[in-house]
Amino acid sequence: MVGGGQLARMTHQAAIPLGARFRVLAASPSESAAQVVGDVVLGNEDDLADLRRFAQDCAVVTFDHEQVPTALLRALEADGVVVRPSSRALVHAQDKGVMRAALAEIGVPCPRNRIVADPAEVAAFAAEVGGWPVVLKTTRGGYDGKGVWIVRDEDEAAVPFAAGVPVLAEEKVDFTRELAACVVRSPHGQAVAYPVVESIQVDGVCREVIAPAPDLSEERAVEAQRIALSIAGELDVTGHLAVELFETADGRILVNELAMRPHNSGHWSIDGAVTSQFENHLRAVLDLPLGDPRARAPWTVMVNVLGGDYPDMYRPYLHVMARDPGVKVHMYGKDVKPGRKVGHVTVCGDDLADVRERARHAADYLRGDITE
Amino acid sequence: MVGGGQLARMTHQAAIPLGARFRVLAASPSESAAQVVGDVVLGNEDDLADLRRFAQDCAVVTFDHEQVPTALLRALEADGVVVRPSSRALVHAQDKGVMRAALAEIGVPCPRNRIVADPAEVAAFAAEVGGWPVVLKTTRGGYDGKGVWIVRDEDEAAVPFAAGVPVLAEEKVDFTRELAACVVRSPHGQAVAYPVVESIQVDGVCREVIAPAPDLSEERAVEAQRIALSIAGELDVTGHLAVELFETADGRILVNELAMRPHNSGHWSIDGAVTSQFENHLRAVLDLPLGDPRARAPWTVMVNVLGGDYPDMYRPYLHVMARDPGVKVHMYGKDVKPGRKVGHVTVCGDDLADVRERARHAADYLRGDITE
Repeated sequence: MVGGGQLARMTHQAAIPLGARFRVLAASPSESAAQVVGDVVLGNEDDLADLRRFAQDCAVVTFDHEQVPTALLRALEADGVVVRPSSRALVHAQDKGVMRAALAEIGVPCPRNRIVADPAEVAAFAAEVGGWPVVLKTTRGGYDGKGVWIVRDEDEAAVPFAAGVPVLAEEKVDFTRELAACVVRSPHGQAVAYPVVESIQVDGVCREVIAPAPDLSEERAVEAQRIALSIAGELDVTGHLAVELFETADGRILVNELAMRPHNSGHWSIDGAVTSQFENHLRAVLDLPLGDPRARAPWTVMVNVLGGDYPDMYRPYLHVMARDPGVKVHMYGKDVKPGRKVGHVTVCGDDLADVRERARHAADYLRGDITE
Repeated sequence: MVGGGQLARMTHQAAIPLGARFRVLAASPSESAAQVVGDVVLGNEDDLADLRRFAQDCAVVTFDHEQVPTALLRALEADGVVVRPSSRALVHAQDKGVMRAALAEIGVPCPRNRIVADPAEVAAFAAEVGGWPVVLKTTRGGYDGKGVWIVRDEDEAAVPFAAGVPVLAEEKVDFTRELAACVVRSPHGQAVAYPVVESIQVDGVCREVIAPAPDLSEERAVEAQRIALSIAGELDVTGHLAVELFETADGRILVNELAMRPHNSGHWSIDGAVTSQFENHLRAVLDLPLGDPRARAPWTVMVNVLGGDYPDMYRPYLHVMARDPGVKVHMYGKDVKPGRKVGHVTVCGDDLADVRERARHAADYLRGDITE
């Protein structure tokens, strides 16, 4: 797996029972995954020599992020390295312009959008979609709210163009909530769909995931799963695909973003599903039969632990375990910095209000937002 | 953790979400845990210099087996190394003579037993406990049926004495089945008890564990848990304690063996309990609050995968996953040799007969006993 972050760390955890040999390409031995993985190659994801050195003897190469330049993926493929998902599929998770064009082609509902060249084109687009504000995104490199702007006029619209990279304009959807439909697909074409979850974002960063999404009609859930399965099939995705969705007041479901790797909206599955997203991602890229994606409890709530003002989480970590022996704590081994994802907590159970309160309390306590 | 076997491998898996740095002392890089752990010290468990090198900078030292000589544990403790369980507790899991004496002292029911010096003493013991056969055990070094003999006369009783090590004689208990009561205790004195399980042994090796033990009365289950908690408390055990028990036709529960480490009878807890034995062992030796030991499903069945005649398990591994997406497969990365524990499978569910059939089928198929 290219990338030494928490996604690779949790994938390593899933590789152990599978008996799969797992290697990571990490930038430094202090990275989250590099701390725990036995086979670490140090190097840079945008250096072809490093990628080649890493890929040597690997049966398959996969990713914990979308940052490897597409040209380098193609070079690895030309070397004969098995890359899953392939560069041809992954480009849709790397480039939002390519993604929107492909989704339009296969008829998947998306916010109206257009590649724009300057603020005047943004203004023209705004006029077409019902006026300001408009969402602007760099087509490449954004994540966790970075590379995204909500602009209210032509002056504000100038900012994203400063970097000189392609910009995508999208209508600002009046959504009631965000959902995520996660599926896993193998080279054989076998696919499984996880229960559709609700994802609660704060400042563009995932804060909380509820599985399954409360009060989601069976019909809407099936529609979301069908969209995700259709994207996975049409784009020939191998591995885990997270489709982030807007649910609108008038009953539509629109695709917001794609991720072709284990994703924050699937962390609940470690404790909450028969087979976690990490295990199924590995099974898929290794072309093993996929595991049961169903939930193990009526409700599972995952809350991210973001860094707060206190760098040392040890006392709150003790407190959280002592207060609630049923909370599953997942720490990523990362230094605490304000706003940084340093872990997550998961609670499963029969009563949503109870499960949610317990998970939120644990995360808030770890962050230092509350002290009792 | 001293020892590079599958218990250390699975403990590493549990250390990752806890955010705990995990080091193993392994004899070779090919050992089960050494394949997956990031921080491996190569060395020998009966070499004090190796143990000291390994223990350097460790907050606490624990074990995946009982083979470290007691004198070396004491030497580490004299150095100021925190050893959990302590040498004073662990000796009861290392030496069956010491264990029987201590259990007698605290009034825990055991098979009648005596340290014997020669075949004549065995014959005298046999006469006292109702005649042959008698069970003979070396006091140290036995496991998985090794170091245990069932002898039918004085001639057969000569064999165990050949090695010149102390021998313990025990009455052969007419048990109806074997149970295991697993508890975890922290230095704080906090303790949790897992559901009592039934353990099915074939030729002295654990084949299958059913959690909870079917048709076990609440009263008997509480008695077994009380015995295990009392042993953990009286012997000042830190970490996981497995108490293997005989249930007799006349309604008694007798202690067979003790293990002070994660144990085969607790593997079901990875998938079947809120907190696995491995996580709780770590929590205990790190003096963290303990996690909820309760079962997540009405029934969990764990079946060991023993090596069969076919060294390559890849095709059966594919088959098992394809046939039953709900089977949890745990492979230890070990070369397949006949009779060797190379993995286990776990199935959870509501219907014991179904769960058991599925787990057995998967294990039998992996071993090569069945091919359909």
